[in-house]
Amino acid sequence: MTDWKHIDEMTKAWIKEAGEQIRESLKNTLEVSSKSNANDLVTNVDRETELFFIEKIRQTFPSHRILGEEGGGDEIEDTNGIIWVIDPIDGTMNFVHMNRNFAISIGVFENGKGKLGYIYDVIRDELFSAQIGEGAYLNGDKLDRLQETSIETAIIGVNPFWLTNNMRIDYQLLHRIVKDARGTRSIGSAALEMASVAAGWFDAYIALRLSPWDFAGGWVIVEELGGKVTRLDGKPLSILEKSSLLVAKPGIHETIIQKYLNNFVERKE
Amino acid sequence: MTDWKHIDEMTKAWIKEAGEQIRESLKNTLEVSSKSNANDLVTNVDRETELFFIEKIRQTFPSHRILGEEGGGDEIEDTNGIIWVIDPIDGTMNFVHMNRNFAISIGVFENGKGKLGYIYDVIRDELFSAQIGEGAYLNGDKLDRLQETSIETAIIGVNPFWLTNNMRIDYQLLHRIVKDARGTRSIGSAALEMASVAAGWFDAYIALRLSPWDFAGGWVIVEELGGKVTRLDGKPLSILEKSSLLVAKPGIHETIIQKYLNNFVERKE
Repeated sequence: MTDWKHIDEMTKAWIKEAGEQIRESLKNTLEVSSKSNANDLVTNVDRETELFFIEKIRQTFPSHRILGEEGGGDEIEDTNGIIWVIDPIDGTMNFVHMNRNFAISIGVFENGKGKLGYIYDVIRDELFSAQIGEGAYLNGDKLDRLQETSIETAIIGVNPFWLTNNMRIDYQLLHRIVKDARGTRSIGSAALEMASVAAGWFDAYIALRLSPWDFAGGWVIVEELGGKVTRLDGKPLSILEKSSLLVAKPGIHETIIQKYLNNFVERKE
Repeated sequence: MTDWKHIDEMTKAWIKEAGEQIRESLKNTLEVSSKSNANDLVTNVDRETELFFIEKIRQTFPSHRILGEEGGGDEIEDTNGIIWVIDPIDGTMNFVHMNRNFAISIGVFENGKGKLGYIYDVIRDELFSAQIGEGAYLNGDKLDRLQETSIETAIIGVNPFWLTNNMRIDYQLLHRIVKDARGTRSIGSAALEMASVAAGWFDAYIALRLSPWDFAGGWVIVEELGGKVTRLDGKPLSILEKSSLLVAKPGIHETIIQKYLNNFVERKE
């Protein structure tokens, strides 16, 4: 039997240690470069933080596999066994421009099913965590289960970019949601927007193209609280695939899928 | 001669005291009601905080006039003399839904010209302040003057709502800006978005319809740092009128007005 409580305790300690290192690193000049395009930023701190986690996991749990944003982990083509899905700094653009509003995100999966989830807002020192079946917490305070809500009183996280002409969605579908919601916000970190749903600050979060490391930690946390986490067409997420994302309280999740996005088709590439 | 240093010291002390009261009030249930529409929220704390400032100002500076969001101040029809422009809680929707991401905003004007500006992020305990000619500060640390920047590397604050069909602007004008910028964000508090420009976290902030109390504090702070604060047609703001708002670093302010918004016409009602 896997001792999830032990893994949970180790992971929390590692996250706090990594957070301390990241805060220290902000006293020095960041080395910033671009990846897939000029706005897809990465820093030395992203890479160093991923390596920190990979070393810890390999030493402590040598049979586990690791999927990491910066590529230091394993090539993962199936979901067998225990897989760690790690984003060392989710919201790198915020990290570079603001030195805040970014997070460490970690999800631990067994045979494709979420077991442990973590989102750590490094600057606010706020750790969201969940172990499936054992509740979700914000810095040790148990989070309330998510209650049903309707779109008219909802605050929805969505990046303004997706409301302009783009290759992922007919933006008019999203315009209807934005107009009917009470308000919309954009933090610029998928992990922190999922954490915002977990905490009840947002009622939903919509994204069109995320990688597994962006949503892995939040997926576990929000599901443990009774929220719904799927693609925008309502189909299940996978830690092996990029996809769209709809994270929401009950009620509003079904409304968004059925009333607003029934014409949405997920585009693969 | 007006002793601005004295007014500045008094105001900072009042803001800290009000902030403490607001944080205390969050331990109790908020009384929430609606104003102009179902999403235009106000709470007992908005009203009590405005009254707190009005009492302090009337006692200490009886010749000054006060313009406040909740209507407890004076009817102001000219800019003569010293006028305080107060938003006791900017971002009331965030205050109600999240208990965070809201601010106290205060600007003090003499004959229509900004003299003192304050934005206080109550939960983060971050006070942005400026006295014209004396620099701008974040919790006692002097803020750097804002440097020229270009749209390609800019993070721009804009509410997703303005990218949908609305009565204030042809939304396609804004779509072009969003597509060319590096990123866009939305906090849901005009004061905190202006503070984000002041701190260099955002490079610009765009809004279509704000009241003087939304922008008064930030106007003084950003201008003191060499940023530009105007309407979206480039014309000057007034503390007597609602208007659109463009707050930006130098360079990008001119680009947005000249390249992207040269067809924009401010609508009065």
